[in-house]
Amino acid sequence: MQESTATTPPADASDSYAPTDRTVPTRSPERASYDREFVHSILDAGYLCHLGFVRDGAPIVLPTLYGRVGESLYVHGSTGSRPLRSAGRTEEAPGIEVCLTVTHVDGLVLARSAFHHSLNYRSVVVLGTARPVVDEKERRIALDALVEQVVPGRAADSRPANAKELAATAVLRLDLDEVSAKVRTGGPNDEAEDIGLPYWTGVVPLTQGHGAPIPADDLDPAIALPDYLATR
Amino acid sequence: MQESTATTPPADASDSYAPTDRTVPTRSPERASYDREFVHSILDAGYLCHLGFVRDGAPIVLPTLYGRVGESLYVHGSTGSRPLRSAGRTEEAPGIEVCLTVTHVDGLVLARSAFHHSLNYRSVVVLGTARPVVDEKERRIALDALVEQVVPGRAADSRPANAKELAATAVLRLDLDEVSAKVRTGGPNDEAEDIGLPYWTGVVPLTQGHGAPIPADDLDPAIALPDYLATR
Repeated sequence: MQESTATTPPADASDSYAPTDRTVPTRSPERASYDREFVHSILDAGYLCHLGFVRDGAPIVLPTLYGRVGESLYVHGSTGSRPLRSAGRTEEAPGIEVCLTVTHVDGLVLARSAFHHSLNYRSVVVLGTARPVVDEKERRIALDALVEQVVPGRAADSRPANAKELAATAVLRLDLDEVSAKVRTGGPNDEAEDIGLPYWTGVVPLTQGHGAPIPADDLDPAIALPDYLATR
Repeated sequence: MQESTATTPPADASDSYAPTDRTVPTRSPERASYDREFVHSILDAGYLCHLGFVRDGAPIVLPTLYGRVGESLYVHGSTGSRPLRSAGRTEEAPGIEVCLTVTHVDGLVLARSAFHHSLNYRSVVVLGTARPVVDEKERRIALDALVEQVVPGRAADSRPANAKELAATAVLRLDLDEVSAKVRTGGPNDEAEDIGLPYWTGVVPLTQGHGAPIPADDLDPAIALPDYLATR
């Protein structure tokens, strides 16, 4: 997992996603960004998303992995899972309307007033229709991307899916089209009249890391920890 | 932020949420738990949820804070924000149908086959109708809970919301009723025929921590770091 570091959206928005009614926030619009590179950087810093869809009129939100390839995100799952089943399995299938959200929390913002407590964070919301990927070549690209998103270097150092596994796996593609990022950085924004209050105020930066990799019980001891894990 | 440690659901399910059609997973049902204490432990180990709702027929998923008080979760936001506005502001308001999901990722599971790669995780999904909280006493309890969920000890060490701030803040309550947890622990589950493959296999445990708290520029240097931050 990449280190979590706060970033400011680039000022140059020449290569941006077009805002829509749904991606312009009603609150804190100054925190919104549509910059393509900034969106990519947030997506590339993670691998877990929360995928929302509607079932029988009600919202469902499930955590799942994603992989980015250019301007597309891929998610996958068992062909038996409900959202993937409802998306259909052919090129002509209607797909499923989703909201895919990725969030990194960078710090706890402790203001003097409870009201101004906040988080520093970076998030991306992608809206659109996720469609089943039928072409085998694209399916393999997607599955590699899902593994690479979690551990870069791993796709080439594991056994690729065989025909049976491919048949059991549904892959959906969601194109990056209706997309927005939101970011908060910096310290607390206390009211002027609160400055003299006797409370500690500032930011607690959050970090993510990992412990020593734990080999499986049946790992051949002659197999060394690969570089892509040793150097993390 | 609490340390991320993998936990197994308690075997004793005598005090459990009743499963429903919507909370029994179609996939990996052995990972599901309805145990009340286990659900609470997952909720209490975090403070950020992904809240899903339906707007104009489409799913929306936004990251937001939550606080647990007994069998209720509270979320809050500006009275101007779209989901909170659509929930209404009176006791008679219909509320808004939501799915509130909390996920902790505990480890990366690297199998010999790409197919069996996985995550160790704990997640909770809460379904139901979030209703506006009108009673001022309950609103204050909720706002304290939201602060305490992020930094235990902080609510009593900050200025409580004043009347203007309270009026600008909408609070929703979602009761813990239709609830499920899902958990994966342990090592990779490779196919027997893959055991001899020359790939490292095991688990990379993930950790969360924090850096040294960064005082605000205008903090009175005489105000020491509080114990609830110093001992984290």
